[in-house]
Amino acid sequence: MRIPLDHTSDVPLYRQIENYLRQNIRSGSLAAETRLPATRELAQELGVSRITVNNAYAELESDGLIYTVEGSGTYVAPPLALSTPLVDDTAVTYPLWQQELTTGGGDDPELGVVARPSSRPHPHLIAFTGVGDPHQFPVDDFFKVLKQIIREKGVTALAYGNMSGGYPTLRETVAHVLASQGIQANPAHILITSGSQQALALVCQVLLQPGDAILVEKPTYNFALELFRSLKLKIVGIPLDEHGMQVEMLEYLLQKYHPRLIYTIPNFQNPSGMCLSGARRRQLVTLADQYNVPVLEDDFAGDLRYNGRSLPAIKALSPPGQVIYIGTFSKILMPGLRIGFLVAEGPVFSRLVTAKRVHDLATSALMQHALERYVTVGRYQAHLRRSCRLYRQRRDAMLAAIQRYLPAEIQVIPPQGGLFIWLRLPENKSSLELLVLARAEGVDFAPGARFFPDFAEGDPYLRLNFATQTPEAIAEGIRRLAIAWQRLGDSR
Amino acid sequence: MRIPLDHTSDVPLYRQIENYLRQNIRSGSLAAETRLPATRELAQELGVSRITVNNAYAELESDGLIYTVEGSGTYVAPPLALSTPLVDDTAVTYPLWQQELTTGGGDDPELGVVARPSSRPHPHLIAFTGVGDPHQFPVDDFFKVLKQIIREKGVTALAYGNMSGGYPTLRETVAHVLASQGIQANPAHILITSGSQQALALVCQVLLQPGDAILVEKPTYNFALELFRSLKLKIVGIPLDEHGMQVEMLEYLLQKYHPRLIYTIPNFQNPSGMCLSGARRRQLVTLADQYNVPVLEDDFAGDLRYNGRSLPAIKALSPPGQVIYIGTFSKILMPGLRIGFLVAEGPVFSRLVTAKRVHDLATSALMQHALERYVTVGRYQAHLRRSCRLYRQRRDAMLAAIQRYLPAEIQVIPPQGGLFIWLRLPENKSSLELLVLARAEGVDFAPGARFFPDFAEGDPYLRLNFATQTPEAIAEGIRRLAIAWQRLGDSR
Repeated sequence: MRIPLDHTSDVPLYRQIENYLRQNIRSGSLAAETRLPATRELAQELGVSRITVNNAYAELESDGLIYTVEGSGTYVAPPLALSTPLVDDTAVTYPLWQQELTTGGGDDPELGVVARPSSRPHPHLIAFTGVGDPHQFPVDDFFKVLKQIIREKGVTALAYGNMSGGYPTLRETVAHVLASQGIQANPAHILITSGSQQALALVCQVLLQPGDAILVEKPTYNFALELFRSLKLKIVGIPLDEHGMQVEMLEYLLQKYHPRLIYTIPNFQNPSGMCLSGARRRQLVTLADQYNVPVLEDDFAGDLRYNGRSLPAIKALSPPGQVIYIGTFSKILMPGLRIGFLVAEGPVFSRLVTAKRVHDLATSALMQHALERYVTVGRYQAHLRRSCRLYRQRRDAMLAAIQRYLPAEIQVIPPQGGLFIWLRLPENKSSLELLVLARAEGVDFAPGARFFPDFAEGDPYLRLNFATQTPEAIAEGIRRLAIAWQRLGDSR
Repeated sequence: MRIPLDHTSDVPLYRQIENYLRQNIRSGSLAAETRLPATRELAQELGVSRITVNNAYAELESDGLIYTVEGSGTYVAPPLALSTPLVDDTAVTYPLWQQELTTGGGDDPELGVVARPSSRPHPHLIAFTGVGDPHQFPVDDFFKVLKQIIREKGVTALAYGNMSGGYPTLRETVAHVLASQGIQANPAHILITSGSQQALALVCQVLLQPGDAILVEKPTYNFALELFRSLKLKIVGIPLDEHGMQVEMLEYLLQKYHPRLIYTIPNFQNPSGMCLSGARRRQLVTLADQYNVPVLEDDFAGDLRYNGRSLPAIKALSPPGQVIYIGTFSKILMPGLRIGFLVAEGPVFSRLVTAKRVHDLATSALMQHALERYVTVGRYQAHLRRSCRLYRQRRDAMLAAIQRYLPAEIQVIPPQGGLFIWLRLPENKSSLELLVLARAEGVDFAPGARFFPDFAEGDPYLRLNFATQTPEAIAEGIRRLAIAWQRLGDSR
């Protein structure tokens, strides 16, 4: 037990030991029933006499903080008060360098309004949030594979993972899955990441500096925005319409802001559900090439198409090395895998491999092995077909319910796939205010603010995830939303 | 299957499809035996006539790239050549923004000399590299727990992990383990990370900008150096002696370089094995406080003490919020867990939580649950005792072998714990050159260059890991090292 002792101090050593233990027990960091070292042990370890330790223990015992069991040892007593006292940060003054941190720091506008726990939480909340439906995850099959790996690989399954891009076999599997979707990728250009979020972070790390401008769709993925903010990037938004990013405005913005990166989600965009049209994809490619700006293509759910024609990946339309492509197994299989990947060609790839290594050395060897074993092109496609059939029904159920329960003044554009339906409230209506009422009625959704570079701009919008609920729950949820909408109107 | 088609092009559509598939098959990204979509399917998906697809398939089949099985479908044929051709980057010209990347980028000096596979790899290489001994990992017990978690939690074990610091119960467990080691930490100030490497990266992310100066021991942990380089930090080194960082030089360096962070490994330092003395710990704390510089305390192996007195953590000696403490379960339990943690108080903590979230959302829920279930204070201490007993024998075996086989001109300072013994060759001898000969003799070690801000300065040093080999293998390995040393001398 490493207890700081100051031999030069006027405070006697036994007091120093006593005070230190007292602090630890009071703060709860020394748990009740923790066995303290024998006095001989501790004395030797601290280089003090055994009497010193005995004195310290005696003081603590007389205060009821510890107790001794004959022939067994000395233990921390159960706390007299209830639980660990929550730390009161206001009581402490922190170093100057910390006080500088308190200013700024892109805080979530919802914290004030919504994140606060609802006064009376609804017993049967219907949540139109999250990603795919957990009940669709092939958990049992996956765990069978997990056990196989554990049996076969034993200890190596818990060694460090491969530190130079991920397991070659997994990278080949990813290449084959991509190819089956019409996206060409050589395994040598695939980097396994800890979820697609890390892929995003690595690309920013390698290509951008604080203050650089980045072009994003408006709205876009909230955790991407949070990342860009935390990296102190200048976020420039391009508005969307039903054909995706309004590429017509791109050249103007490229000239005005000289962005170092274009971040786009071309398929079933998060949160809007829109797809970038083929014509606009080609325009985007031409302009990115012409203005020498890399494109980051986030294809988080490109496979989940329920109707309409599939469109080529932007990467497939671009000259080699122009586009960095990001994909994930989280949406289609299981978020908990925390395994994503990126595809990049040219010098940037080795930079990304290095960035991955310095950020967390490697992604779990166990998970990489298991995923590689579990995912085959056939299995993936079968799972994809099942998911598409199911999610399509749910999308249609939600669109029907919206038709039935919500007034026409709330605008909706039916998505051709993905997970989300994007609603727009009439001007001067707030989705944050609606959310408070909606939760009271027993329905939850993602308010629009978090998806916009400028929070306020997003307030009239809300994102509904239709993939996680049954058609019945969807109908009931939208009915509740309609009631909340009513109450919002009345409250004005 | 998303195939890019240009309806305006002069190239007929069937050719576009054919060429695209041909490319994919040639590049290997469409694997042999991959089932191609039925012509009707693909035609519908691409919005072309079925004849168009038939034509494309026919062309490919006549070239032997695909084959059809009556009543089953069309498949990619096994490659005529051997395997996937490795991509020839030199053949391609990449966008301008990529060519800028090729310059700089702290490349490993060993790549040229050593990383190249040995001409004749030794059949029974004895590796004094790596971290703990994999055979000591409590794999079976851990997997039992893993299966329990899977059985109990089912799908939730594969949902996203907690995004605000990690699972509370795991954070409490960490606090109790730390307390049992005499380090006070409130669970509310503990952040679970994907290995301690990520903790390092997050702290840099939050506190440092490119160009900022960071103070490190010289030598220090190579992956920390790689991280600092990749973040374009100015790395300022303080030399070590047998009492750790030469804190006497600290004030001068603080005044000269105004570092924004002091990174230190006070216990059984990696790679030198040295411990920072108690007096110097107090000097360090005083100066850091006085000059308002945060301290990052990396305690990767502080528990692995085999003799001598344990010393208080720097964090335990500092005013609240002055020190960020990093720990890990990788060294003592299993690297493959990829779970580490940091302890930080004050405003910086919430910044670190945000940084964690934007970097990879969350650490594997499954692994967090399993670790929380597996680790108890008692179990941890028992495992620690076993490891210390074992590693102590191995340290002594290596010191004895060095005494016996290596000449006195090679300097060694016996470490009191940890995993590493640090050797210094006489001036103008190169550990990189020695390594080439050593591998030929069948022994591997970590050359010193990678542990120094200035590679060249580290060339006379080498790091031996004594924890991963049996005493017999250690003796044999050092004997081989002595032979390599002989040959190095002869070669001059």
